[in-house]
Amino acid sequence: MIDGPLDMLIRQLAALPGLGTRSARRIALHLLTNKDKTMLPLAKNLNFVAESIQTCHVCGNLDEGDICRICKDQTRDRTTLCVVSGVADLWAIERTGSYKGTYHILGGVLSALDGIGPADLNLDALISNVRAKNISELILALGATVEGQSTAHYITDQLGDVKDIKITRLAHGLPVGGELDFLDDSTISTALKARANLGA
Amino acid sequence: MIDGPLDMLIRQLAALPGLGTRSARRIALHLLTNKDKTMLPLAKNLNFVAESIQTCHVCGNLDEGDICRICKDQTRDRTTLCVVSGVADLWAIERTGSYKGTYHILGGVLSALDGIGPADLNLDALISNVRAKNISELILALGATVEGQSTAHYITDQLGDVKDIKITRLAHGLPVGGELDFLDDSTISTALKARANLGA
Repeated sequence: MIDGPLDMLIRQLAALPGLGTRSARRIALHLLTNKDKTMLPLAKNLNFVAESIQTCHVCGNLDEGDICRICKDQTRDRTTLCVVSGVADLWAIERTGSYKGTYHILGGVLSALDGIGPADLNLDALISNVRAKNISELILALGATVEGQSTAHYITDQLGDVKDIKITRLAHGLPVGGELDFLDDSTISTALKARANLGA
Repeated sequence: MIDGPLDMLIRQLAALPGLGTRSARRIALHLLTNKDKTMLPLAKNLNFVAESIQTCHVCGNLDEGDICRICKDQTRDRTTLCVVSGVADLWAIERTGSYKGTYHILGGVLSALDGIGPADLNLDALISNVRAKNISELILALGATVEGQSTAHYITDQLGDVKDIKITRLAHGLPVGGELDFLDDSTISTALKARANLGA
């Protein structure tokens, strides 16, 4: 291994999520053999993104400016608020194109194991937003994990006294395209209990 | 998905070898949440490496300056020349720390399928180097593939008239730590033919 800036670049790349030393080496070589078309534009854009992308003051999304385009968009339904754990989940829902409301990013889920309590999450702003604004439906789009579900319970508890609000969660069941054979027992029994009428 | 510089960054990352859109998104989010410690240093070093790392005029290695530290190093044995396909292979041999000679990078191997002929490789410089310099051993450290072996044959042919030179290749056989059970038949039969005396 060669010491110096190249070795440092490989170490920097290897520290990125999902990469190791071997893939970092391969990427560094690819970049070095495509300096003008790949390496320099990437460096330039990294600087530009670091400068221009900020956390939205309203929902916690990452976008240009201090209020993201979803929160700015006047055509979005401001009476529906979707609570997600992180930016990646917001992006995942946006990619479906099937949600037209606004978001609130918690910044994680409650986890006794990881020592994440209510004070570590963006919960106070959520509670006060729901109380102050005219929210008719709160969608708790949290993972179907113990942590996600206990976070949903906590939020539901905190909003127990708020009237005229519907609190919902994502449906549990078979993933679209999923085979019964490969599914775990609890998903199958959940899907069986929540079975829907055909043609309904 | 959000359009703009962030979307462009994800596309740039997804185009790197071994990465896809999903891993690129994960890396972009990781970078954005670690701007000062990860994103800006990476951008800075990408620019620095693009400027400072060049192809060595002698061997074809990538290093600071126009002659690499291996070619500069007076303690390396200049009578032994190791021919490799690319920089990654040179790095792999260097990492073992068991080779003290110099290198020559071909920039690929002969491949009729991919349309790579002798003119596409750094072969002329190799042949004239071997003729001009006092090389006692030429190690053809090329892959044990059809292409690697036909490239080795071609080089051996070209140097048929050079006297007092030993042309060698890497040994074929069991990888260290390898189980017989998982090896292909031709490796086993090669290893069997080239069996070595115990304690010899």
